[in-house]
Amino acid sequence: MTTKPKLTVGVVLFNGFATLDAAGPMQFFDQLHDEIETITISHESRIVYSVPPNGGCPMMANYTFENTPPLDILLLPGGLGCRTLFHDPRYQEFILAQSKRVKYILTVCTGSGFLAATGLLNGKRATTNKKAFREIEKLSSAVLWVQHARWVVDGNIWTSSGVTAGMDMVYAFLTMLFGTERLKIVLEIIEYTPSCDDTHDPFAYLADA
Amino acid sequence: MTTKPKLTVGVVLFNGFATLDAAGPMQFFDQLHDEIETITISHESRIVYSVPPNGGCPMMANYTFENTPPLDILLLPGGLGCRTLFHDPRYQEFILAQSKRVKYILTVCTGSGFLAATGLLNGKRATTNKKAFREIEKLSSAVLWVQHARWVVDGNIWTSSGVTAGMDMVYAFLTMLFGTERLKIVLEIIEYTPSCDDTHDPFAYLADA
Repeated sequence: MTTKPKLTVGVVLFNGFATLDAAGPMQFFDQLHDEIETITISHESRIVYSVPPNGGCPMMANYTFENTPPLDILLLPGGLGCRTLFHDPRYQEFILAQSKRVKYILTVCTGSGFLAATGLLNGKRATTNKKAFREIEKLSSAVLWVQHARWVVDGNIWTSSGVTAGMDMVYAFLTMLFGTERLKIVLEIIEYTPSCDDTHDPFAYLADA
Repeated sequence: MTTKPKLTVGVVLFNGFATLDAAGPMQFFDQLHDEIETITISHESRIVYSVPPNGGCPMMANYTFENTPPLDILLLPGGLGCRTLFHDPRYQEFILAQSKRVKYILTVCTGSGFLAATGLLNGKRATTNKKAFREIEKLSSAVLWVQHARWVVDGNIWTSSGVTAGMDMVYAFLTMLFGTERLKIVLEIIEYTPSCDDTHDPFAYLADA
């Protein structure tokens, strides 16, 4: 019996990240730790806070942009703190370099703004947090922004709506990789009933506001 | 206009905590950071991992049991790592001391095992993760364990079923404190549709297995 190498997911963290944008998907990865290794990456400081300077959820990064090991999957969370980073050359360089290497890129909530700012979503369908929709879509008119979607898949890029939508997107993503039977056990342990319909978006109306 | 003091929530962390047991409620607290200050507490090491020794979600603790400031609310997450801590005298002492001071105690998933082991649930109704139900209920026959419940409230103690049930419990808890209108804005930002019926428990069947 050969041991299949684990998939490595890199979760980018920064001050002002939305706790669940990162932690929602990470709970799924934790349940699949035989198949998936999760690493955290930050370019700002080793410890980041969801409510900076030092409030909310304190999460630690294992790596920086400079020493990140090879990744299979890149996960970009959003949150209030990402707004000042979309056009940060360090972020753009890291994300563009990773985009050439990884198999998949996943974004949660306003995390899709990172990809919009780099041009990686040009001509592609994508979504974002519905309360921030009008703000994020301004980052690029070359993106085919989808207002009504819990999550959107275009090629190897998966983008989700706000915060908890990331869990539904990751459930769909992991089902594609590992099958519904494997994920059924995960759902039973975390007692989660996912939304399995990417077009069921009860919050799409917020983008009209 | 007087400024109302914030409520302080203390989240106990340990190696092998379930990421979302802590992070699900914390996302709600983050959105209410004008009303709630969240602090993290660990007695083992400053950085804890959801998949120990150093995998999964790395979270940092701001305080230890010895220097924890006064709390209004104590939150006890569960996870694989809590099993060896239920009868740890340091945990029992801390939890019993806090129970005399805090306004509310909240547990998520197998976190209710901490309270069962201390005797704080004696004669009270409580629930836990449904896949771990038979294991956790063995901790105390003096607890009125509720198999069919998304979450249970008895006095000032709120216990939830597995992992994501903590978000529904915390939504109900915060609605009690701050009202549905305030929480409506939170739900819109995190795009969450909570289960508002504590008796709607799609995973209760797992406890029969």
